[in-house]
Amino acid sequence: MSQNLSDYLKQCLTDDRLQRFDEVVKFRTRHLTVVLENVYHEHNASAVLRTCDCLGIQDVHVIESQNSFAPNPEVALGASKWLTVHNYRSDSEPSNDSQLNVSVDCIRHLKEEGFRVVATSPRQDSLPLSDVTIDQKTAIVFGAEQIGVSDEALSESDDLVHIPMYGFTESFNVSVSAAVILQPLTTLLHASDIDWQLTDTERGDLIERWVRQSLGSTLAPLIRRFNDEQGRL
Amino acid sequence: MSQNLSDYLKQCLTDDRLQRFDEVVKFRTRHLTVVLENVYHEHNASAVLRTCDCLGIQDVHVIESQNSFAPNPEVALGASKWLTVHNYRSDSEPSNDSQLNVSVDCIRHLKEEGFRVVATSPRQDSLPLSDVTIDQKTAIVFGAEQIGVSDEALSESDDLVHIPMYGFTESFNVSVSAAVILQPLTTLLHASDIDWQLTDTERGDLIERWVRQSLGSTLAPLIRRFNDEQGRL
Repeated sequence: MSQNLSDYLKQCLTDDRLQRFDEVVKFRTRHLTVVLENVYHEHNASAVLRTCDCLGIQDVHVIESQNSFAPNPEVALGASKWLTVHNYRSDSEPSNDSQLNVSVDCIRHLKEEGFRVVATSPRQDSLPLSDVTIDQKTAIVFGAEQIGVSDEALSESDDLVHIPMYGFTESFNVSVSAAVILQPLTTLLHASDIDWQLTDTERGDLIERWVRQSLGSTLAPLIRRFNDEQGRL
Repeated sequence: MSQNLSDYLKQCLTDDRLQRFDEVVKFRTRHLTVVLENVYHEHNASAVLRTCDCLGIQDVHVIESQNSFAPNPEVALGASKWLTVHNYRSDSEPSNDSQLNVSVDCIRHLKEEGFRVVATSPRQDSLPLSDVTIDQKTAIVFGAEQIGVSDEALSESDDLVHIPMYGFTESFNVSVSAAVILQPLTTLLHASDIDWQLTDTERGDLIERWVRQSLGSTLAPLIRRFNDEQGRL
């Protein structure tokens, strides 16, 4: 039944569209993932999500513990509706304790899932970008504008990474940093013999989600019509 | 006399500041250079200049032929006062002919100076970023938002380069593209045995410019005082 609904919905999209889904899904990966810790500005968060889509990084973990003035997460989500965004928010009112727990929980969760967690930091003991390896599943953590990744997230991380800087200006904007770090790691991944692609099941599920996403406001009426037709059979 | 004025002005800056100049100048290069062709938005142009400073790319060539609504070039210049910005503008009113000539003139000028010119383009025959070499002096051309590098500039260029894209979104913002392309080329350069650094004379001249830049509005009174003191000797 669910398979039939899925086929029914697919028929409502053009062949070109469905072919694009097939092309894009081939390059999707969960071997690399991204964590955004309290990135305040919506345009920065959106730009990072856009970069993830461009590079095929499917999962983004968004920590919003300190940011009570957070832009509507749906907006940034809308900018990259093709991604899987995992939200981590504190349940309680912002306090130091709850803030720390959200970041730490997110990182521990990723480590339990087998990720090596690499946080961006200008600290002296951090690796230059060209030394980062991705043999293991890897999560890259980007921090808030100005203050960077929190101390708590840094101490939970397995490694640190920085982009070498040689000028008077000593930092890139977070959206620029993300692209500069993620692009070569993606190239490295594609050139490796790592099994980085999604499984057939994951691909099927993702395409089904993309189909529904594409149908937008016509999805609900189409499902109703499908159910009516099924009822008449 | 000029040497003395230079020493006099240096004494007006802190040792820390002068030491920073010495550190930064060591990583400055003219082996890589950047061309911005009609980048409309000041914040994009400024971000690219900031990236060049961060990576040690001293010379930026700014073509402004189509952009009669150009932001004051001094603003973007101010954002990266440590760079050498070369401006190329059409003398006449914007017309198709004058527009083309400015870009073509800039690129031919760079080729005469020994640069291989590589323009960013999503065209099928363009090289993926990881295939770009920098054995020869190399200029990377970035184009206007939306329309990219002009056809005329593309046909004058020696090679094309693109950042491989695998998602639904098919382009990066120009400031993100610039950092993604220039960062690995800089890493490649530093790891090579190419003689990429400035000559001693170039370093001396650049530091002298930085000293004057740093003194800002106190420069003119200081020069007057120096001349007065010289006159009394």
